[in-house]
Amino acid sequence: MKNEIALIVGAGKGLSASLARACAKRGMRVALAARNTEKLAQLAAETGARTYACDAASAPAVQQLFRALEGDLGAPALVVYNAAARARGPFVEIDPAQVAGALDVIALGGFLVGQEAAKRMLAQGRGSILFTGASASVKGYAQSAPFAMGKFALRGLAQSMARELAPKGIHVGHFVIDGGIRQPGESRTDRGPDGFLDPDAIAETYLYVHGQPRNAWTWEIELRPWTETF
Amino acid sequence: MKNEIALIVGAGKGLSASLARACAKRGMRVALAARNTEKLAQLAAETGARTYACDAASAPAVQQLFRALEGDLGAPALVVYNAAARARGPFVEIDPAQVAGALDVIALGGFLVGQEAAKRMLAQGRGSILFTGASASVKGYAQSAPFAMGKFALRGLAQSMARELAPKGIHVGHFVIDGGIRQPGESRTDRGPDGFLDPDAIAETYLYVHGQPRNAWTWEIELRPWTETF
Amino acid sequence: MKNEIALIVGAGKGLSASLARACAKRGMRVALAARNTEKLAQLAAETGARTYACDAASAPAVQQLFRALEGDLGAPALVVYNAAARARGPFVEIDPAQVAGALDVIALGGFLVGQEAAKRMLAQGRGSILFTGASASVKGYAQSAPFAMGKFALRGLAQSMARELAPKGIHVGHFVIDGGIRQPGESRTDRGPDGFLDPDAIAETYLYVHGQPRNAWTWEIELRPWTETF
Amino acid sequence: MKNEIALIVGAGKGLSASLARACAKRGMRVALAARNTEKLAQLAAETGARTYACDAASAPAVQQLFRALEGDLGAPALVVYNAAARARGPFVEIDPAQVAGALDVIALGGFLVGQEAAKRMLAQGRGSILFTGASASVKGYAQSAPFAMGKFALRGLAQSMARELAPKGIHVGHFVIDGGIRQPGESRTDRGPDGFLDPDAIAETYLYVHGQPRNAWTWEIELRPWTETF
Repeated sequence: MKNEIALIVGAGKGLSASLARACAKRGMRVALAARNTEKLAQLAAETGARTYACDAASAPAVQQLFRALEGDLGAPALVVYNAAARARGPFVEIDPAQVAGALDVIALGGFLVGQEAAKRMLAQGRGSILFTGASASVKGYAQSAPFAMGKFALRGLAQSMARELAPKGIHVGHFVIDGGIRQPGESRTDRGPDGFLDPDAIAETYLYVHGQPRNAWTWEIELRPWTETF
Repeated sequence: MKNEIALIVGAGKGLSASLARACAKRGMRVALAARNTEKLAQLAAETGARTYACDAASAPAVQQLFRALEGDLGAPALVVYNAAARARGPFVEIDPAQVAGALDVIALGGFLVGQEAAKRMLAQGRGSILFTGASASVKGYAQSAPFAMGKFALRGLAQSMARELAPKGIHVGHFVIDGGIRQPGESRTDRGPDGFLDPDAIAETYLYVHGQPRNAWTWEIELRPWTETF
Repeated sequence: MKNEIALIVGAGKGLSASLARACAKRGMRVALAARNTEKLAQLAAETGARTYACDAASAPAVQQLFRALEGDLGAPALVVYNAAARARGPFVEIDPAQVAGALDVIALGGFLVGQEAAKRMLAQGRGSILFTGASASVKGYAQSAPFAMGKFALRGLAQSMARELAPKGIHVGHFVIDGGIRQPGESRTDRGPDGFLDPDAIAETYLYVHGQPRNAWTWEIELRPWTETF
Repeated sequence: MKNEIALIVGAGKGLSASLARACAKRGMRVALAARNTEKLAQLAAETGARTYACDAASAPAVQQLFRALEGDLGAPALVVYNAAARARGPFVEIDPAQVAGALDVIALGGFLVGQEAAKRMLAQGRGSILFTGASASVKGYAQSAPFAMGKFALRGLAQSMARELAPKGIHVGHFVIDGGIRQPGESRTDRGPDGFLDPDAIAETYLYVHGQPRNAWTWEIELRPWTETF
């Protein structure tokens, strides 16, 4: 993977930061995109990553992101879509704007990033596009319709893309992350030892999947802490 | 079901028309909502239904629909969400506007109608909210990402609603309609006899599910022609 | 359905009795098969059913059952497989004989009955074969491996049969019964009103599915009480 | 993983041989169990593995296998269940003995090996038990009921075990191997380049999952060639 270009969209302090470090460790050149790039300064310095301000739910913004990335670094070999929005509450009290927002950020953004990534990767006949799902991708919980709608839609997108793009050399992966992710700097033990997913461990699995040979590709994989009820 | 009020959203000439007739046959009072109500005139005359112009993806429009319905007929005992938008094509050629449109019409519209319906039904402690899915609700096909995204999201919505609202007396159902639906007036035989779903048969199953006693409710049910590959 | 022959295998006092009554009510001629037919005497008297002693996990016994049924009444139009065996306990303490027993009664028995039924129905180009599943058909619970193994296997059987036999006119259905079934004579309220499935309500749904036209067949359907967590 | 003991049950020339080599490469001590151990001689010589003759569907034989293994090498840290039996043909022509055989070898054998493994691993609070599934684990194909029944049952077993044993430190994994596996010595290209799963690639993924930290365990993962239709 050395010198490959990796783009992580929806970059924050948790999983995306672990992904950036895992990519940098392998000699990949990393690009981080988020709505607000100020919070990425330290991570960028640490990993040598470039940062890009981008609203993933805006088609022109995503197209501009990929053009800028191409100009700066080249075409990405790995793109991870990691943006999400969450809204909870009694069903009848949910603000419809939160549903629209969750669909935009989780599903439409996933499509836009996936499509721009696919355009570049098809030209090269290779590349990986990985989507971050959740337990809500396969189970719609009470009081959580917006998140379920977004994550179900993202899974439908990833499955449709895999069926179409895998035979063209593009590895599309969907990760069902089931459980709480430990935030960096925390050493939470309120779920017992190892009761939270370590984002570094998740990131290692993403890169493992990216590295799979094309004769044995994973479309979907689950990750959960040993003590997580499912 | 006699004298119950049934609202069918996304009404057209196919399944919605069959639903309207099946409801009218049982003595229900029927309301039909669609973006364009002109095409509903004949059906309305035939079933005694009231028609309402409504953009299901607009929160104010859906809220206005339910207020008008309440003023005209009262609170609905049965609401069916049947609106859909479809877009096909090579993944990299899909217009992002079509994705946004599919998410709006299929998923956001389903939420808006489901939420307004739930508000009325919770007040009465009963009612059925039924969503029309497709094979694309559970399988993301190549060249069909927008439809898969919308229908996956709608299924996540229906599942989340069922988990929250069933214990409050509201029956939420999701129908996986797998196969082509015979259009009225057609007598297509290009898939052999009974190779297309008869919309009247689908409608009967919707009303069967609506009529189930609450101790044995169906959340999800599949319907497909005998010859359909799955 | 009048005068059709219905065979219910795994007949007991609960769902099978409700099925027998629901069939008899429609003028069907009913046959009941169970390992021990003594307990069926009253039900047989009430529904005019014939009873057959049969170990459903024995190929010769099942073949003999169908030969006897043909001689007595004719070929069945509806066959329901309802036999089950359950074993619970810590995984490492489960007696392997209980696993073998669960696989025999639930899965092998389902195959044997399904195969003999299919032979007769293929000759007529029609008929329904319905299998009783459980929440354990789609979710393997802790401390319940034998039941999960049997019910998962039965679902695999039903799905395989549906794919092969539906295009030949045989309706194969799988019912995911999720929740406790109220036993006859009981009026349990410890899960609140309607907290248990009424076997009569389940039976009505079986017969609804049997009566579906072939252009809109259900392969799988869930049934659960409104208050059931899932 | 160095010096850990790995037991592979259902050992043959394909995936099991690749697993043996992958384990040996990491310094693990390998045990191979199969009904017929003669065919394992070369592999044993190559990997330094011990071989054990064992009918995995026999409880006493499996218990004896684990006792012998403990005496020879110690308690296993990794157990892979890889035995299978397949039978195809028109549903009504399948020999019931083939169904019983498939259930025995695939499902009962999986239980027996899983149970004996769990007993040893619970004593140590750690270990991995990995099961080899197939596309037939999640989709019952026409003309293939016995294989579907066995593989569905094995998945139910693995899911039930994961729910119970993961919180006790035992990692239970289920691999959905979707596609043809290239046999050793072959260089098949009739499905195009990389159209068959390379058993070495599958084996690497098994060991990756075995090595996952317990805060981010995979219960289920799919593997398929890039060109495989699904």
